[in-house]
Amino acid sequence: MALAGSDEITLEELQLAARNHGMPLEALRYPLTPVGLHYLLIHYDIPAIDAAAWRLQVGGHVRGELSLSLDDLRERATVRLPVTMECAGNGRAKLAPRPVSQPWLLEAVGNAEWGGTPLRPLLEEAGLLDGAVEVLFTGLDRGLEGDVDQQYERSLTVADALRDEVLLAWEMNGAPLPPQHGYPLRLVVPGWYGMTSVKWLGRVTVLDRPFDGYQQSRGYRFRQAEDEDGEPVTRIATRALMVPPGVPDFMTRRRLVDVGRCVLEGRAWSGRHRVTAVEVSADGGASWAAAELSDPAGPFAWSGWRFPWDPQGPGEYTLCCRASDDAGGTQPLEPPWNLGGYANNAVQRVPVTVRG
Amino acid sequence: MALAGSDEITLEELQLAARNHGMPLEALRYPLTPVGLHYLLIHYDIPAIDAAAWRLQVGGHVRGELSLSLDDLRERATVRLPVTMECAGNGRAKLAPRPVSQPWLLEAVGNAEWGGTPLRPLLEEAGLLDGAVEVLFTGLDRGLEGDVDQQYERSLTVADALRDEVLLAWEMNGAPLPPQHGYPLRLVVPGWYGMTSVKWLGRVTVLDRPFDGYQQSRGYRFRQAEDEDGEPVTRIATRALMVPPGVPDFMTRRRLVDVGRCVLEGRAWSGRHRVTAVEVSADGGASWAAAELSDPAGPFAWSGWRFPWDPQGPGEYTLCCRASDDAGGTQPLEPPWNLGGYANNAVQRVPVTVRG
Repeated sequence: MALAGSDEITLEELQLAARNHGMPLEALRYPLTPVGLHYLLIHYDIPAIDAAAWRLQVGGHVRGELSLSLDDLRERATVRLPVTMECAGNGRAKLAPRPVSQPWLLEAVGNAEWGGTPLRPLLEEAGLLDGAVEVLFTGLDRGLEGDVDQQYERSLTVADALRDEVLLAWEMNGAPLPPQHGYPLRLVVPGWYGMTSVKWLGRVTVLDRPFDGYQQSRGYRFRQAEDEDGEPVTRIATRALMVPPGVPDFMTRRRLVDVGRCVLEGRAWSGRHRVTAVEVSADGGASWAAAELSDPAGPFAWSGWRFPWDPQGPGEYTLCCRASDDAGGTQPLEPPWNLGGYANNAVQRVPVTVRG
Repeated sequence: MALAGSDEITLEELQLAARNHGMPLEALRYPLTPVGLHYLLIHYDIPAIDAAAWRLQVGGHVRGELSLSLDDLRERATVRLPVTMECAGNGRAKLAPRPVSQPWLLEAVGNAEWGGTPLRPLLEEAGLLDGAVEVLFTGLDRGLEGDVDQQYERSLTVADALRDEVLLAWEMNGAPLPPQHGYPLRLVVPGWYGMTSVKWLGRVTVLDRPFDGYQQSRGYRFRQAEDEDGEPVTRIATRALMVPPGVPDFMTRRRLVDVGRCVLEGRAWSGRHRVTAVEVSADGGASWAAAELSDPAGPFAWSGWRFPWDPQGPGEYTLCCRASDDAGGTQPLEPPWNLGGYANNAVQRVPVTVRG
């Protein structure tokens, strides 16, 4: 990965930012993110897939291969699960030096209801053979990355792949998957950063050795230097974000709030633990007060929070919010740095001008 | 407007690029752009609107004011119209010096089927009084721009507002408008750049003098210098774009194509004239050959085009495409420059590596 010393974004990064898109943060107000507002990160291109000819192949280290059409899959048990998904690179563009890749600020998140069939019974039907250690998920999107010609693919350990909540999804918010979210079928791995939930799924392969492809062994690892192996990026770190209050200045996005009570609201989530508290600061993190937290719509969905803020008068404020979880974790004030710019869950800072 | 001398994008521009989004160019393959892939430019925030309480107010220089609920509007004559919409700032980030605003490359386009009711009968019902010269459309989105506190609003002359194709739309591709595209109601002005099609419409006001608000008198004007009045930006300039062929390199987006025949395809449109031809060049614009052009789905929708390309062998190529129209116009090889970075319809250039 290249690093940029400057605050300015290169044209190559802009090319990615113009293709992929975040969720404008005012969309935190929707419990379920409307289609088109959910964040989207596409490594290569949206592939052109003929759904009528498409089959999901399930094979590798199994007793019997399966080949399933979309209709075959739809006849299986169907579940619908609200899942908060975040890109592992969310917050990358706030790091210094900046890892050069998709330059996310804070918007790479969304909460959708995914509908599909659990993976586990399908793997059981194929029959894992002794010695199966991982399950590989291969997308139909192709490109070059790190000088490797590849289809996008990622693996899970057998234990993780057999978890009840892992879905093969053909629905998003009650409608067929849009092309950009993986039509006709994608993997959804609740609680994990989005790179795990392989889109445009073509093949599920049971492996008798760990997968060492690009997206597993080079991408998505916590490293401080190129020559380290690093630990893999897995579950989503604890985080809260707020709807920026008031109205924006078009160019600077600075927020303007009229004096008087201002109800702050937002969402909080964690892919590892349960969010137990959200706190708000109006002085850049010097002091904190507890927000009111709502129950999430499911074990993998974000929680809503609100906080009535009474600014002391006109002036400049820096609003912050942070979530804590039942493992005692909370969010850092300064971003945790790594070479890929992953899992930056540093506290959001929203500069606000209160007007008299 | 500020100008940037550098190729690099500022963090302020990135904030806009992370919120707004273009249509990844491979989505040119869809005749109708799927929701979530259509380009989106939001000046301020997506407003929170209670559709049950919402009313469209029609007033100003009229015989009788109207106040209409969404149900009232839905009971009126409904039409559905495929319309190619493009942002006036598309191509801005390719200009030098670069006007600092939303840094579009080429992706700020889409073709949706808008469903709604024609504006004209509604204006006739309200009854334009003598002396009516313009119709003002006020959105419910608020913000600060050019130091002016404002709701987003734009006007049309009475003659333009009374054109048959101008719609008040509550549907996009057969579904209710998504929040980010103007729910519950937006204006759609076919043939014009997108800034005209005011989203989250709250009020239609007939004026007895020209509107001189920010988005009309300062924004969206062709100027070479700040002290000029300039001509207004209106209809969409003639343009063709192609689906970048082959597969991309993740970071550079350079295209890799295997040797052999490669069918190029794309779309072409014009808001002023009728597209009569598309040509393709494989040598950066030195020589051109005619592509096959399809009929558009309607008078305001883009046309498809295709061109079977037989590269002479492995190597580096620069593919280009350009449209011509029935007024004798075509696209320039070099971008037309103006202070706001509007209407840059310079020929697309796609660097391609053909591999043996």
